[in-house]
Amino acid sequence: MAYTAPVEQIAFILNNVVAFRQLAETELFAEATPETVTAILTEAGKLADEVIAPVNRAGDLTPARLENGKLRSSPGYAEAFRALADGGWIGVSANPEHGGMGLPQALNAAVMEMIGSGCLALQLNPLLTQGQIEALEHHGSDHLKETYLPKLISGEWSGTMNLTEPQAGSDVGALTTKAERMDDGSYRITGQKIFITWGDSDVTENVCHLVLARLPDGGAGTRGISLFMVPKLIPDENGNPGMANDLRVVSLEHKLGIHGSPTCVMSFEGAKGWLVGQENKGMAAMFTMMNAARLGVGVQGVAVAEAALQAATAYAAERVQMGPIIRHPDVRRMLAESRAEVFAARAICLACATALDMARATGSEEWAARAALLTPIAKAYGTDVGIRVSDTAVQVHGGMGYIEETGAAQYLRDVRITAIYEGTNGIQAMDLVGRKLADGGAAAMAILDEILDGAKAAQATEPELAHQVWQAAETLREATLEMLDRDLPERFAGAVPYLMAFARVLGATYHALAAMRGGNAALARVYINRILPHFSADLAAARAGLADLEAVEDAVFAGRMAG
Amino acid sequence: MAYTAPVEQIAFILNNVVAFRQLAETELFAEATPETVTAILTEAGKLADEVIAPVNRAGDLTPARLENGKLRSSPGYAEAFRALADGGWIGVSANPEHGGMGLPQALNAAVMEMIGSGCLALQLNPLLTQGQIEALEHHGSDHLKETYLPKLISGEWSGTMNLTEPQAGSDVGALTTKAERMDDGSYRITGQKIFITWGDSDVTENVCHLVLARLPDGGAGTRGISLFMVPKLIPDENGNPGMANDLRVVSLEHKLGIHGSPTCVMSFEGAKGWLVGQENKGMAAMFTMMNAARLGVGVQGVAVAEAALQAATAYAAERVQMGPIIRHPDVRRMLAESRAEVFAARAICLACATALDMARATGSEEWAARAALLTPIAKAYGTDVGIRVSDTAVQVHGGMGYIEETGAAQYLRDVRITAIYEGTNGIQAMDLVGRKLADGGAAAMAILDEILDGAKAAQATEPELAHQVWQAAETLREATLEMLDRDLPERFAGAVPYLMAFARVLGATYHALAAMRGGNAALARVYINRILPHFSADLAAARAGLADLEAVEDAVFAGRMAG
Repeated sequence: MAYTAPVEQIAFILNNVVAFRQLAETELFAEATPETVTAILTEAGKLADEVIAPVNRAGDLTPARLENGKLRSSPGYAEAFRALADGGWIGVSANPEHGGMGLPQALNAAVMEMIGSGCLALQLNPLLTQGQIEALEHHGSDHLKETYLPKLISGEWSGTMNLTEPQAGSDVGALTTKAERMDDGSYRITGQKIFITWGDSDVTENVCHLVLARLPDGGAGTRGISLFMVPKLIPDENGNPGMANDLRVVSLEHKLGIHGSPTCVMSFEGAKGWLVGQENKGMAAMFTMMNAARLGVGVQGVAVAEAALQAATAYAAERVQMGPIIRHPDVRRMLAESRAEVFAARAICLACATALDMARATGSEEWAARAALLTPIAKAYGTDVGIRVSDTAVQVHGGMGYIEETGAAQYLRDVRITAIYEGTNGIQAMDLVGRKLADGGAAAMAILDEILDGAKAAQATEPELAHQVWQAAETLREATLEMLDRDLPERFAGAVPYLMAFARVLGATYHALAAMRGGNAALARVYINRILPHFSADLAAARAGLADLEAVEDAVFAGRMAG
Repeated sequence: MAYTAPVEQIAFILNNVVAFRQLAETELFAEATPETVTAILTEAGKLADEVIAPVNRAGDLTPARLENGKLRSSPGYAEAFRALADGGWIGVSANPEHGGMGLPQALNAAVMEMIGSGCLALQLNPLLTQGQIEALEHHGSDHLKETYLPKLISGEWSGTMNLTEPQAGSDVGALTTKAERMDDGSYRITGQKIFITWGDSDVTENVCHLVLARLPDGGAGTRGISLFMVPKLIPDENGNPGMANDLRVVSLEHKLGIHGSPTCVMSFEGAKGWLVGQENKGMAAMFTMMNAARLGVGVQGVAVAEAALQAATAYAAERVQMGPIIRHPDVRRMLAESRAEVFAARAICLACATALDMARATGSEEWAARAALLTPIAKAYGTDVGIRVSDTAVQVHGGMGYIEETGAAQYLRDVRITAIYEGTNGIQAMDLVGRKLADGGAAAMAILDEILDGAKAAQATEPELAHQVWQAAETLREATLEMLDRDLPERFAGAVPYLMAFARVLGATYHALAAMRGGNAALARVYINRILPHFSADLAAARAGLADLEAVEDAVFAGRMAG
């Protein structure tokens, strides 16, 4: 299952499709030139191909396990992680003050895509660490920053995110983990958390938990929640891992995929923690981490889609049934549609990352609003494409795709979680039509204006494609205005199809721009003629409202009543 | 994971939506009254709920295995299979002369759906046996019929289908297994077959293999292929299992799902076989079996979708996150769309089965052509719905859906094979636009006329729904005429989306008919307003041709060139 990092495809999007080139004109990212892009992508690609991808199968076959309460990671993971950390890849966009490279998030996203293509289960470890780095950079005290950032950036330590409790999944406000103030300024954390990715590790010397908990006088709901740094080993006065903290891994989950990533039930038993940000403002700090992670998960979808598509392509080129099946029209259709979707999802993720970078580099609120709007789209569409393309890749393999040894099924099993964690895709869509349209649609309209500008620009060289994008954008604008007129339950009923329609229109735009700028016009046609048209069915569903859904009895869903 | 057989939903479709009631007016199926339907469905439902479903999880956790060359099936399978066989459920539509019930295939399909909801891996065993029964009824000599049919129908013996070889999957004509004529009128079979479902069994006392092989003077391709009955134990003069035949299971595959179903590599080492049908006409006999099995696999998709949807509904009713999540608009959307698709897929499968029955009861070529056209649609749409609904059911479970103990992931893993085996869904679609349109579109047009009649009938009570169905049918007619004008490679490039469009229009029609006849109008609206609209995007893809697919370079699929 050889993977080859798609350096050229990614570089083309960065340099020609999204606003990445504007970054090099800012002071902060003056170094982000096309040369840097190529150098970084080539190096990271080599790591992904040669070091990360080779451990992917072993992690599936030999999951992480607990041995007398100690975590044992999958064979080869420690070495692969060490190579990744030593290459500096955890700190691509971290602050140089603490050892990071200070490069744009967009470049980090591209690097993380490659590593995720290599091995998703292992990539989760640096992904969560990067989220923690960002949360600390924004909200940590100087002492926390000095103690933790260098170790996290170097990969000596890793980071986790502790939100979920059995009764508090999507409803984070229902959490009950307790925090008590101690005389020395620290806190005592007590409670149980579930679904904690890489909640323990033997590939790093310490594991740093960011834990959401409630102070005795914290109110109910999300407003009474605070965020704490709770390390597995408490740093001593020299900043080295010292005494064991009062926390432990209770058990690991037995999952559909990402077997190499230990998913832990964690018990905090009066563990020592330090406040991150302000008391009762934990959700704000957590959102920093979650937003970065959401984009990161969208990128994971693209990552697995790329790897699965490469595997399917290789199989189709070799498998002969009345000629190589890659020449069969239906197999070609599957591969072409998949490639067109991977391009679109990748462009959306990189556009989102670039917007984050532009916001940071220029302080522009428009860029920040754009990034905020694109984040749920990148997450949900990226992961949906991840699942769809991995599923198609199994299909291209025919009967061999169902045999585990082939590896195609692993991609499908692994990627399936991405539509669920970091907020299910339904939650992403509700975020889009709720919070992200709360500006009265300003950010959405700004993007739609840009799409129309793009379509206008493409008209000279690709008139037919440009025309379809234009029409789609106009229809999406109407649907957006209609959405703004509705109450939240009505919006929520149409949220997922609305998000998907938005993604398809964006994807079509990026394809048209690419075709115009020397990219693959045939691929753009595949997307715009075959995939974009579903946007209008999506919008029909988005507009269909709540009444028909309410009118179907629960007993009908349950099969207990004539449908 | 309690499953409750949806007796009322199935009975409603049989009695009100498809042509099942016409069957009771024929001599052959005079007994197929609504009372019989209810009695059969209720009994089979009880078996599925109480006996079959309880072994489903055990089969996943403890796959079938080889022990010193002997097959050991999963815990509880033998008892569950015995109950199924003793209830007479293998022979629901088999000839009463040999112990069958002689009831319509449509009723058998409904029964097999329920058993498949209970445990897909186990249901495969009677499904393949039923295909073998049908092949023998049509093509077997009297001696073969007398020897094998009573044992197969009673479930004392089971049947398999041996087509695939490593180099001959979709290209059956490439097979190399050899048959030699022996002096006693039997044949010697030598070769290796792969992907043989239930290729051995300890739940029956004998296993009967129907094997495709080539005689020394059989020509190349599919025309030189003959079909043989090759039993594991050779029946003695009293018809009891006697000497072991020269064949063995080499190994079992390690699969994504249906772990309880042993998927065997079979080696025939000069095994004794008897000709079924005529020499070199094996493909014709095999097609009888394959057509029945294709519909049966479509039904499997519906079966797993039903079970997965019931599980998701139960979870959504219990899981509280700011109220039970079944009240959340987006969760409701997922459940309602899933239920609407299950209804549509089930109606298409039962319409296909009923057409088969009408063809048999009346000898009508129109009904036969209708059944032939509906078979690939039932197979591909039924299994696509199976995968889509099982995938949505995982999503409804949120994080719990990714944990294997929940059982939701098993449905997704199990059902994934149904889009691949018995001819991939791509092969089904090519069959539809190739062989099934080879009549110049007569059968397709006949169905479209019926759809228009249905829409006309529904106009009085459901004008809006009827209008949409009408329009969709007209567009589908245009697309069909266009398809007929194209050469095969062009048709094949659009085959899958064309099939999906056809299925959606059919599904919408059955929903409209149901709404008109006292069924669930709200569910019909969900389908027609949210799912049907995708048909026009499907038709856009169906019409997009081959040129853009050919224009994308293979290196772009492989990620080795800027896309």
